[in-house]
Amino acid sequence: MSKGDVNPLGVSTKDFEGDGLQSGRSSAGPPTRLDRWLQERIAERFDSSQVRFVLWDAPAETGPESGPATVRFGDRGALFGLLTNPAANFGDLYSTGRITVHGDLLAVLDEAYRNRHRHTRVPRTPSRFRLQTPNLSESRENIHHHYDIGNEFYRLWLDRAALQYTCAYYADEAMSLEQAQQAKMHHVCRKLRLEPGEQVVEAGGGWGGFAMFMARNYGARVRSFNISKEQIAWSRDRAKAENLDDLVEFVEDDYRNISGRCDVFVSIGMLEHVGVGNYRELGALIDRVLTHEGRGLVHTIGRDSSQPLNPWIARRIFPGAYPPTLREMMEIFEPNELSVLDVENLRLHYARTLEHWLERYEQNLEAVRSMFDEAFVRAWRLYLAGSLKAFEHGSLQLFQVVFARSGMNEIPRTREHMYPAGG
Amino acid sequence: MSKGDVNPLGVSTKDFEGDGLQSGRSSAGPPTRLDRWLQERIAERFDSSQVRFVLWDAPAETGPESGPATVRFGDRGALFGLLTNPAANFGDLYSTGRITVHGDLLAVLDEAYRNRHRHTRVPRTPSRFRLQTPNLSESRENIHHHYDIGNEFYRLWLDRAALQYTCAYYADEAMSLEQAQQAKMHHVCRKLRLEPGEQVVEAGGGWGGFAMFMARNYGARVRSFNISKEQIAWSRDRAKAENLDDLVEFVEDDYRNISGRCDVFVSIGMLEHVGVGNYRELGALIDRVLTHEGRGLVHTIGRDSSQPLNPWIARRIFPGAYPPTLREMMEIFEPNELSVLDVENLRLHYARTLEHWLERYEQNLEAVRSMFDEAFVRAWRLYLAGSLKAFEHGSLQLFQVVFARSGMNEIPRTREHMYPAGG
Repeated sequence: MSKGDVNPLGVSTKDFEGDGLQSGRSSAGPPTRLDRWLQERIAERFDSSQVRFVLWDAPAETGPESGPATVRFGDRGALFGLLTNPAANFGDLYSTGRITVHGDLLAVLDEAYRNRHRHTRVPRTPSRFRLQTPNLSESRENIHHHYDIGNEFYRLWLDRAALQYTCAYYADEAMSLEQAQQAKMHHVCRKLRLEPGEQVVEAGGGWGGFAMFMARNYGARVRSFNISKEQIAWSRDRAKAENLDDLVEFVEDDYRNISGRCDVFVSIGMLEHVGVGNYRELGALIDRVLTHEGRGLVHTIGRDSSQPLNPWIARRIFPGAYPPTLREMMEIFEPNELSVLDVENLRLHYARTLEHWLERYEQNLEAVRSMFDEAFVRAWRLYLAGSLKAFEHGSLQLFQVVFARSGMNEIPRTREHMYPAGG
Repeated sequence: MSKGDVNPLGVSTKDFEGDGLQSGRSSAGPPTRLDRWLQERIAERFDSSQVRFVLWDAPAETGPESGPATVRFGDRGALFGLLTNPAANFGDLYSTGRITVHGDLLAVLDEAYRNRHRHTRVPRTPSRFRLQTPNLSESRENIHHHYDIGNEFYRLWLDRAALQYTCAYYADEAMSLEQAQQAKMHHVCRKLRLEPGEQVVEAGGGWGGFAMFMARNYGARVRSFNISKEQIAWSRDRAKAENLDDLVEFVEDDYRNISGRCDVFVSIGMLEHVGVGNYRELGALIDRVLTHEGRGLVHTIGRDSSQPLNPWIARRIFPGAYPPTLREMMEIFEPNELSVLDVENLRLHYARTLEHWLERYEQNLEAVRSMFDEAFVRAWRLYLAGSLKAFEHGSLQLFQVVFARSGMNEIPRTREHMYPAGG
């Protein structure tokens, strides 16, 4: 079933033996007393009623037995790798099957997040990592790496109606993924008080779902910028098929080249790729394109405090990405005479969104396997599950920031319009 | 009527001639061609249909004639002072009657704010002024200077029910000051999801109106800290009179000495006096006192971008005060594992609040005159009118920030609870 050669993430598959990931490498020889001692050092970071650890002498198809999950180290290198730098090494060790999880992967990640403060220390002082400033060609490479791996792949687990690859809004906890993504888009449009005929500029438009939503539901004219070739091609086809191509223009270009004027500037899930060093320039661009009474919204993954992105995510999943703190985000607004009107933190909505994505991903595993090799399948599962737990434990945040020009008085006095009765 | 010797602001009254402020100083000699030329340099910063300028040779009781306002310079020094540093000098020149405004003072201030960008340059780079870090005794002096000038004075123009000397919330534009202050307190309590029996710590409690409101309307137990002697004495009397003294404790102490534990930390209008250099310590204090599922709210005057407080306000009205930007405020939260859930900017509500205060102040002018000398009367009018225009033009902002511990999941999913049906 597996297409062993298709892996756009670049994770090595050389340790695989056909489909038999669970077998691991048996070349390590039987575990020594040192191996056992190291295994215990890892195990003591976890609640033993939740997660159990075994070494390569345990059966490859070992069950979770008592508790929700058993973690099996396939070889000595996997054991050493996890001990020395779990955040950096777990991803590849898991993807390549040198570490296998029998039972509930989420339970393992949950424990890892729950206990992270006991064993790791996050630097409190600002350091060089924050000054990431991708230039145009680096941005193109970064975006290509993640978003151009196949529209069909994303269709397997994103919402069907709008292919929203960003946090949904569960106005009601019982909402489906489709409903919550529609609710998210309405929530954003209400925050922006979008009116028929208004000109919108969207920076980072994904598969065009929100641009078309604004045209279809609010009568807006939208110019949507994106540097992902595959997403742009998809978006243009969809707009034509829906006869929305007179209202919505998809521009294959970098946000830095946005020109013209707009009543509304909106960016959902792009800031993560911009780099803090480019924020001031992004703000200057907004200042250039926004009309006097214009307003804007930036929706982004963020942090409560500055820290680098998980090194495995940075290497395999989102090269060049960085979730900013609110303090860092202010570099967009403060130097450019923009006034922050409203900030909402939707962290737990992203945890729920990821729950829905992961559920669909697992339901469509065979289809994913027909597209990619097993290391990719496992890496992507880990990325979705790990992100879910990161939002659940507050390691990641989701900020929606509404802004207007400094001193602009054509702004709503209250936020009641965001909460229409029964809405 | 005037009590010429009572002026807690310290503004010099030596240029006054009894009540006859409008007479100015006539010792300057007739205006020269240079004086006229300087007058024109000032006039060209204003729309001549709004504000007209005259020199000391014009009649002292000069009317506004055409347009809403005429500004009269009483002597050459006043003319020079305004030209060289209007932000620093206008306050004292106006207070001491060396500059008089005939007609609408608000129209003059409006024009000054409208055109400020044309003629002044605000430094964009952070500079030393931001590192204001008052120690305990400096804080005591600063607070005494402003808040201990007489409870009876503040009663003349604040809302009667709760003596709120902070921004009100006009859920409905037609609200009276009293209604809007009640609405503000409800809005804050809803944001905090305050429940009966919960322990609140309030930092900077003013005249105790909000502490008693929380006890009376939400059944909360409140410990309210304040270093203003007069406010504490007043608050204790009121709590006794209302039989709320078993629920509300007024503590005459600095916020830095807050101890114990609380479910809710709230501070309305104190942060302006804390100093950016003390924010991290304030956050550490919140981290110490807040229970695991606790939440908090900080309500403060702020800025869209860093700049020093108007020098006249800093000298005469609010020594040591500083309205922070959101970026600066994050120093409270980010180093202390606190997570920002919600930020609301209520700038225009403060403009409306000040409109109400100024209206009452003018209505009660005779009572104010019986308490203070004319320079105080004029200084305070200018302070209220100038603040009104500062909020209206976006030179000042009003931020309400809701927060909880990082990773705490007992938080509301949406903000609908802040907007109950029917207000």
